[in-house]
Amino acid sequence: MKHIAQKDIENLDRFYRGNLINSVTGYKSANLLATRSQDGIDNVAIFSSVTHLGSNPAMFSFVQRPLGHGVGHTYENLKATGKITLNHINMELVERAHQSSAKYPREISEFERLDIGLLNRNGFHAPFVKEANIQVAAEYVSDYLIKENNCILVICKITDIFIIENIQHKDGWLDLEKAGSATINGLDGYAVAKTQKRLSYAQINKELEELTLDTDA
Amino acid sequence: MKHIAQKDIENLDRFYRGNLINSVTGYKSANLLATRSQDGIDNVAIFSSVTHLGSNPAMFSFVQRPLGHGVGHTYENLKATGKITLNHINMELVERAHQSSAKYPREISEFERLDIGLLNRNGFHAPFVKEANIQVAAEYVSDYLIKENNCILVICKITDIFIIENIQHKDGWLDLEKAGSATINGLDGYAVAKTQKRLSYAQINKELEELTLDTDA
Repeated sequence: MKHIAQKDIENLDRFYRGNLINSVTGYKSANLLATRSQDGIDNVAIFSSVTHLGSNPAMFSFVQRPLGHGVGHTYENLKATGKITLNHINMELVERAHQSSAKYPREISEFERLDIGLLNRNGFHAPFVKEANIQVAAEYVSDYLIKENNCILVICKITDIFIIENIQHKDGWLDLEKAGSATINGLDGYAVAKTQKRLSYAQINKELEELTLDTDA
Repeated sequence: MKHIAQKDIENLDRFYRGNLINSVTGYKSANLLATRSQDGIDNVAIFSSVTHLGSNPAMFSFVQRPLGHGVGHTYENLKATGKITLNHINMELVERAHQSSAKYPREISEFERLDIGLLNRNGFHAPFVKEANIQVAAEYVSDYLIKENNCILVICKITDIFIIENIQHKDGWLDLEKAGSATINGLDGYAVAKTQKRLSYAQINKELEELTLDTDA
């Protein structure tokens, strides 16, 4: 195998290192996080760091890059209003979603500028992304400063889930292939996945079984 | 769209809620984290929470479930020895990797019990997974207790990377499709992904371009 040692990693060109290190931990989730400022300005931005944190209470985390230099509108709006939505990116949305990582000024709505469909729902402060087949409303819970690199781990509680029909199994599982959800490889690679199998809960001295992939079963 | 409201989420059967909430944030990375205790007992366990945290220094995080009840050998070994490896799961490894989530006693090596290939490398304390096409050696950096649910966010620094031939592009990017890396849907769904496109760095007032997917280019 090819060996890239610590000294090599530290001395790499920064773009090369960014591409390598961003892809070496595996596939990432692909989400648009949307917020609305107290002044009513909408914001939507792509995040590949959303991670499941717990089911009860239902929580996820995301990583906010160090603040400053026009970065952090998502975080600021979330802290100010307490509300955010998570919206799955599909291949129809990929170009517009990727472009949302450009540093638009605070007063620009990326929904308008990038022609991303904005969906308002009664009783929800933050907007949703109309094209997303899985949409989640969430609230701010807390955040932790990662002092090693000044990133912020932001923790949110899921309050509401909206899904298109025919992607949920009887046991609750959402079929992300049927939902068309993308997955991210590195900084800029977009992929779609094909489910190979589901496996039963692992226990000592018990054989694994394959679960059905039929949403109607 | 189907709406699952906060009250519904809280009242769901716990297995149904686990399946739903684990899949609603999108695809997850699929890794085996391997450690060796100070007594020389090997441990390997599947994690779907590994997340890129930064490229310089090169760091990733993973979520350790609340300790106790036989949980946390990975975390304990990492804290005691400072060393860990991250190994990508491919479809050949999926059954054995999934089974590693069963709660084997501390004195059992999951490598031996589950016939997972153990690779020792000179100068590295923690073992690697032989079948993995992308293998990473890392060191303990710090951890943060997530007080909302007693999970622990563990932060590791990447020291060495081992990859099979022909999966890296000239700009550093690793082609996870070529590497055969799996991605996880929910608690128990395993998928393989097909790269659709890579897009250029997003800037204001600049058109996105598609990057080549040819590893030789």
